[in-house]
Amino acid sequence: MIRIALDGMGGDFAPQATVQGAVEAVREYGYHVTLVGQPKLLETQLADLRFRKSLIDIAPATETVGMGESALMIRHKKDSSICVGMELIKQGRVNAFVSCGNTGAVVAAATLNLKPLPGVKRPGIAILLPTLKGVTLVIDVGATIDAKPEHLLQYAVMGVVYSKHILKKPRPTVSLLNIGEEATKGTSLLREAYQVLKESSLDFTGNIEGRDIFSGRADVIVCDGFIGNVVLKVCESLAETTVEFCMRELKRSLLTRVGALLCRPALTSLAREVDYSECGGAPLLGIDGICIIGHGASKPKAIKNALGVAGHFVRYKVNDHIVHEIESIKADTHEV
Amino acid sequence: MIRIALDGMGGDFAPQATVQGAVEAVREYGYHVTLVGQPKLLETQLADLRFRKSLIDIAPATETVGMGESALMIRHKKDSSICVGMELIKQGRVNAFVSCGNTGAVVAAATLNLKPLPGVKRPGIAILLPTLKGVTLVIDVGATIDAKPEHLLQYAVMGVVYSKHILKKPRPTVSLLNIGEEATKGTSLLREAYQVLKESSLDFTGNIEGRDIFSGRADVIVCDGFIGNVVLKVCESLAETTVEFCMRELKRSLLTRVGALLCRPALTSLAREVDYSECGGAPLLGIDGICIIGHGASKPKAIKNALGVAGHFVRYKVNDHIVHEIESIKADTHEV
Repeated sequence: MIRIALDGMGGDFAPQATVQGAVEAVREYGYHVTLVGQPKLLETQLADLRFRKSLIDIAPATETVGMGESALMIRHKKDSSICVGMELIKQGRVNAFVSCGNTGAVVAAATLNLKPLPGVKRPGIAILLPTLKGVTLVIDVGATIDAKPEHLLQYAVMGVVYSKHILKKPRPTVSLLNIGEEATKGTSLLREAYQVLKESSLDFTGNIEGRDIFSGRADVIVCDGFIGNVVLKVCESLAETTVEFCMRELKRSLLTRVGALLCRPALTSLAREVDYSECGGAPLLGIDGICIIGHGASKPKAIKNALGVAGHFVRYKVNDHIVHEIESIKADTHEV
Repeated sequence: MIRIALDGMGGDFAPQATVQGAVEAVREYGYHVTLVGQPKLLETQLADLRFRKSLIDIAPATETVGMGESALMIRHKKDSSICVGMELIKQGRVNAFVSCGNTGAVVAAATLNLKPLPGVKRPGIAILLPTLKGVTLVIDVGATIDAKPEHLLQYAVMGVVYSKHILKKPRPTVSLLNIGEEATKGTSLLREAYQVLKESSLDFTGNIEGRDIFSGRADVIVCDGFIGNVVLKVCESLAETTVEFCMRELKRSLLTRVGALLCRPALTSLAREVDYSECGGAPLLGIDGICIIGHGASKPKAIKNALGVAGHFVRYKVNDHIVHEIESIKADTHEV
């Protein structure tokens, strides 16, 4: 049976949303879920919900890491829900850990507690962005801010494995996020990464500009964690801002105000569609353990989805595939 | 009288849109406009329009630089409309040059033909983004991709001068685009730039994350040209994508389809509002000459706006203020 730990205390709507999401995941997927956090709080939430008791238990953790706290606080909070969750993976008591808490703290705790997968130099956070043609995976969005060309190659490999086995894309293409299409564009990191990717056995389609991210032209977009993080945050806020501009614009005349009333439910569901949390959270790829980071604002459905993705991750042995592909790309590129 | 040269051949809708925009600017502002480009094409367009002939003339240029061509082509196209426009500034025959052509080529031509302003180390492209509270200036969005902390300080100074004198903001605040609010976040460039900005006499409010760009919290956002360029292109495409998602979502039921019909004009005008070209183009700051880069997709109104901004730039002596402020910040920071 697939066993997944969930950070019961992580996210803006915890513990209500986390407990509710856990119960929904148990009901839908039949996984075993271990809620990590303050037992009294979690039990109170659980008491109101119907669920199969044999499929949910609680792992106590007395501390929590706030959304605004420095990631380094993790060193001083060994009994936080994030650290306890990592410990459960390390001890093999669960197959995966899902947290909607402080992203930096989750990455730091994973790096401190878990080893990288054999052959992997740096872990990367992957996110799924909705585009006009399905989803596009972007990696890295913040695990590493001083990436080297070989790290970007490995991100590409891991992104391709994830796209194949979780997103079921048969032959995912890879693009490099840059400021122009020519191989000579961008920083020296990107020019070198371009060559390394071109010489690899991946289906590398060249550079992609920011304006093409949402076209869905690339299945996997590779970038360093700094630029990826900025892009991610801009996307989140711009989608919200555009919907707000929309509503404001629509209120200008009586006719559009009527239109806006009719449209409101659709616009609200749109804001959710653009929100990447609906895609099931962001996997931290390259660590020896499965760790999915959910959006801080996750509602129960997003949490259930993240638990679902964690289960797929286990079932399709994504990490085994990553190790295998990293090994074979190394052979291809003569030990880059 | 203010005399402005306009690249008649630049942009997706040239020469129709450029000639039309020039005529509208002449009518609205009374500036003299010199259209630069192939005389026959420009004359044909002009023939159909009513305008005061004394206020428009043509400077011949036989070559054009395509939107997709490498910026370096400018070295081989001395008789392109972009190079001839720069030459007109250099000879003092016009006060400013506006182009909606290839951005890289315009920057390269400006750098080759014009000197930097006294004290300025690197020019920077500034753009204006619409936010929930008015516009925010972002600098640099692509002139320089290997910026140093002192360049970012100078971008801040130039952005503040522009915001004061063109946007009429009395005391513009400055923020640094980063992946977190703490001074220790981001690359070494950003950590150093944070200190340099903090010690300056500018109204520096610290780091700003991508998610806050559209809040309107900062008047001037400083970043290096690589990240700025990626953000700009993501913004352009995401706004369009969101509107497209909107329309798609709205078509799902009969009720929202009726709503969508009523809303269509508003959504179309929204797409324009989010389009930064409506704000009057992107000034290239820090060069000894005035150069405004319009969006490639500029329609006549956007071109007229860019010509309007160029005129304000002349009238309010923005470059004199930049030289003065760069000098005084140097004194402040003991020759950073």
